[in-house]
Amino acid sequence: MLKAEIITSGTELLLGEIADTNTSYIAGQLAGLGINLYYTSTVGDNFERYSGVLKQAWERSDLIITTGGLGPTQGDITREVVSALLGEKMTIDPGLKEELTQFFTRMHIDMPDNNLKQATLIPSAQALHNTAGTAPGWWVEKEGRTIIVLPGPPREMQTMWQNAVRERLEKKRSAYIMSRVIKTWGMAEANVDLLVTPFLKSANPTLAMYANPDGIRLRITARADSLKRAEELVAGRERDIRELLKDKIWGIDDDTLERVAAKRLLQKKKTLAVAETFTGGLLARSLSSVMELKELFRGGLVIMGGARAGWELGESSPETAIKLARLAREKFRAEIGLAIDGPEVTGQSLPGGKVFIAIEGDGNDEVFPPGYLGRLDQMAWRTVNHALFLLKDFVDR
Amino acid sequence: MLKAEIITSGTELLLGEIADTNTSYIAGQLAGLGINLYYTSTVGDNFERYSGVLKQAWERSDLIITTGGLGPTQGDITREVVSALLGEKMTIDPGLKEELTQFFTRMHIDMPDNNLKQATLIPSAQALHNTAGTAPGWWVEKEGRTIIVLPGPPREMQTMWQNAVRERLEKKRSAYIMSRVIKTWGMAEANVDLLVTPFLKSANPTLAMYANPDGIRLRITARADSLKRAEELVAGRERDIRELLKDKIWGIDDDTLERVAAKRLLQKKKTLAVAETFTGGLLARSLSSVMELKELFRGGLVIMGGARAGWELGESSPETAIKLARLAREKFRAEIGLAIDGPEVTGQSLPGGKVFIAIEGDGNDEVFPPGYLGRLDQMAWRTVNHALFLLKDFVDR
Repeated sequence: MLKAEIITSGTELLLGEIADTNTSYIAGQLAGLGINLYYTSTVGDNFERYSGVLKQAWERSDLIITTGGLGPTQGDITREVVSALLGEKMTIDPGLKEELTQFFTRMHIDMPDNNLKQATLIPSAQALHNTAGTAPGWWVEKEGRTIIVLPGPPREMQTMWQNAVRERLEKKRSAYIMSRVIKTWGMAEANVDLLVTPFLKSANPTLAMYANPDGIRLRITARADSLKRAEELVAGRERDIRELLKDKIWGIDDDTLERVAAKRLLQKKKTLAVAETFTGGLLARSLSSVMELKELFRGGLVIMGGARAGWELGESSPETAIKLARLAREKFRAEIGLAIDGPEVTGQSLPGGKVFIAIEGDGNDEVFPPGYLGRLDQMAWRTVNHALFLLKDFVDR
Repeated sequence: MLKAEIITSGTELLLGEIADTNTSYIAGQLAGLGINLYYTSTVGDNFERYSGVLKQAWERSDLIITTGGLGPTQGDITREVVSALLGEKMTIDPGLKEELTQFFTRMHIDMPDNNLKQATLIPSAQALHNTAGTAPGWWVEKEGRTIIVLPGPPREMQTMWQNAVRERLEKKRSAYIMSRVIKTWGMAEANVDLLVTPFLKSANPTLAMYANPDGIRLRITARADSLKRAEELVAGRERDIRELLKDKIWGIDDDTLERVAAKRLLQKKKTLAVAETFTGGLLARSLSSVMELKELFRGGLVIMGGARAGWELGESSPETAIKLARLAREKFRAEIGLAIDGPEVTGQSLPGGKVFIAIEGDGNDEVFPPGYLGRLDQMAWRTVNHALFLLKDFVDR
C-alpha cells in the first residue's frame, strides 16, 4: 500500500510568520483518494536541512509531495534540493522559457533574469503547468518513487493540484474512502458525544467529532473496495445521525452557514439587507462573499458606537435590534432585514446579556437574545453564525 | 543544544478538514526563545500511530510539544499515549477535579462524566492551568527530557503558552535570536529581491523575503550571545533596508495596514466612514476590528450591485467613487470618507481597469485606479489593503 509524505518548505513557516494551509489541503485530497498519509513535516529554506528531510522521505515513502521554494529568489531552493538528491543536472527547457517570457510580455513587465530558473527541468522530471503563476511544478518518477514538486502560494498549488496532479494520482489509489462531515449548530460538544456514543466505537464507518466556530461537526468515514459500497456505509450512518440530531443539523461537507442561508433566499427569491453594530461588517462580508447571492443581497449598514446617536439608536435592546432590521430593509429596499446589535464594547470583551439578533420581513419580526459573552472577535463570529442559522429558518417558513 | 519537536494531533488535521495553526504559533515562539526546532509532524487520533510518532520524538528530541487530544471525547487520547510511553498510570487529581467541577457550576451546566478524564495526572506530570477552557495541560519531566502537552483549540493553547509555558522555557534557551519583519506595499517580489541582493547572502543577520496579500515582506534575523548584540545587528540591517525601500515600507512585525492607518487617524483625531461595493464589507470589517479606533471609525455602507440604482450610483468611474466617499462622510457625519468601487462582477472574476479608490476630507479629494484584475476574493483583499495604504498617507499630510 502506497505510503505518502508531505514536506512543506519555507523558513517563514518554521518561524511561525505564516500558517501552513498546504498540508491540510493536500492531506484532504490524499484522504479522498484513499492514499495513506504517514508523515508530514515542515523545513526551512536551508539547503542541508531540506536535503536531509527529503532524503529521509525518499527512504521511507513511495510518494513525496513538496510545496514551496519554487519562486524566483535566491531563497527558493526546492529544485536544487531535488536535483541534488537524485544526482541530476538542472537545465533550462526551451518550451518553459518561452511560456515564461510570454507571461511577462502579457503583463507588460520586463522579465527579471532570476525568473529564468523557473524554466528549468531535470531528466526525471516532467513540468506541471502553472495556470495561476510563473513557477511550473515538477512530476518526478525514479526508482519506483514519485516526487511531486508544487509551488507554495496556496492558490497556485491548488490549481495545479486540480489540473495536473489529481487525476494522475487517481491511478495510485489503494481503496475507496468516502467521508461526510455533518455540521450542527446549538449543541455542546460533550452532549453530542453522549448522544452518538454507540457510533464512536464503530470501526467502519468511523465517526469523529470536533468543535468549530460554526458549531459541532461530525465526520463519518467509510472504507471499501468499491465507491458504491463506501457511499452506502456513509449514507447509512448519516441517516442514524440525522435521526438523533434532527434540526440541529444545518449542512454537510463544504456547506457554510452563509451558503445554506443564501440557498433558501434563492429558492424563495427574497431580497435581503443587513444592519450591524459590534460585528463591524462581518455579517455583510459573509453574505457578500456568496457569489450566487449578488442580486438578492442588496447591502448593509455598519454603525459603530460613535455613530449610534446620528442614526437615532438607543441602547442595545430588542426594540433597537428590530429598528436596525427595519432600517436595513428601508435603506436598501429589501424584503428581509437582518440585524445584529450589541452593547457598548469595553476593552477586548463583550459584556454579556445584551446581544440581539432581529429578523424582519413579510409582516413578521423576531428577536433572539443569544446571551453570548467573552472575547470580542470570537463573539462576533459566533453571533454572525447564529444570525445566519436563524435567517435560514426564517426564510424557510 | 536543545532539539525541539512539535507534534500536533487530530485526524481532522490529517484529513485536511481544519488547518493547523498551532505549529506555526509554537514555531514562532520557539524561534524567539532561540530554541532550535528540528521536526514538526501531525498525527491522527489513532493510539498506535500516535504512540509511534511520540516514541520517535522521545528518541531524537529533548523537548517535545504536543497539541490536541485533551478534550472530553473518546477520540481524545493524548494523555493515554503519553502515559503509555512513560509506563505511568493516570489517576484523578482531587485538586483538578475540584476546579473542573467549579467550572461547570459557574456555567450552570451539569458536568458530563466523560469530562472527568480532564482531571487526571501521571507521577511525572505537573498540571498546566487552562484559563480558557476545561482541559489542563501537562508539563512532563523525565530522563532529561521534557514533554509539554497542550490543548488543541488555538486560543486555549496560546493562553496556556503565555501563562504557564513561555517563562519556564526561557531557562532552556541556548542563544538570543532577534527577528524583525519589514512590510512593504507596491513593489514586485523579483524587484525587491534585486534591490536587496547583497544582504541576502549575509549569514548573520540573515535576510529573507516573501510575498503576502499585504505586500512583500522582508525578515531580518540575527543570532548573538546577548539580546543587546542581536538587537544591534537587526537595527543596523533595518537601517540599510529603509534606505533602499523608503516610503514603500508601511510597517514592521505585528503591524497591519488597518492598525497603521488607525494610528494616523488617532494622532490627527480624524473621524472616518467608508462606503464600498464589490468588497462587500471587507473594508468596514478591517477597520472595525481595530479596537483603538472604536470612537473614530463611525461605520460604513455596503452597496451591492442590485442596490446601486436606489443609491443613485452610476457605473463605476472616478466620479462615482468620489460620490461614494462623500456619501459615507455625510451618512456617518465623519471628517474623512474612504470609498472602494468596482465594475459589475461577472462570475468569480473582476473585469480589469474599473476599480477605483477615493478619499475625501478637509476640502481635498483623490481618486486612485489600482488597475487590478483577477479572482474576485483576491482582488477584494488587494483593493482593501491598497485603500488602507492610501488612507495612511492621506491622513499624514
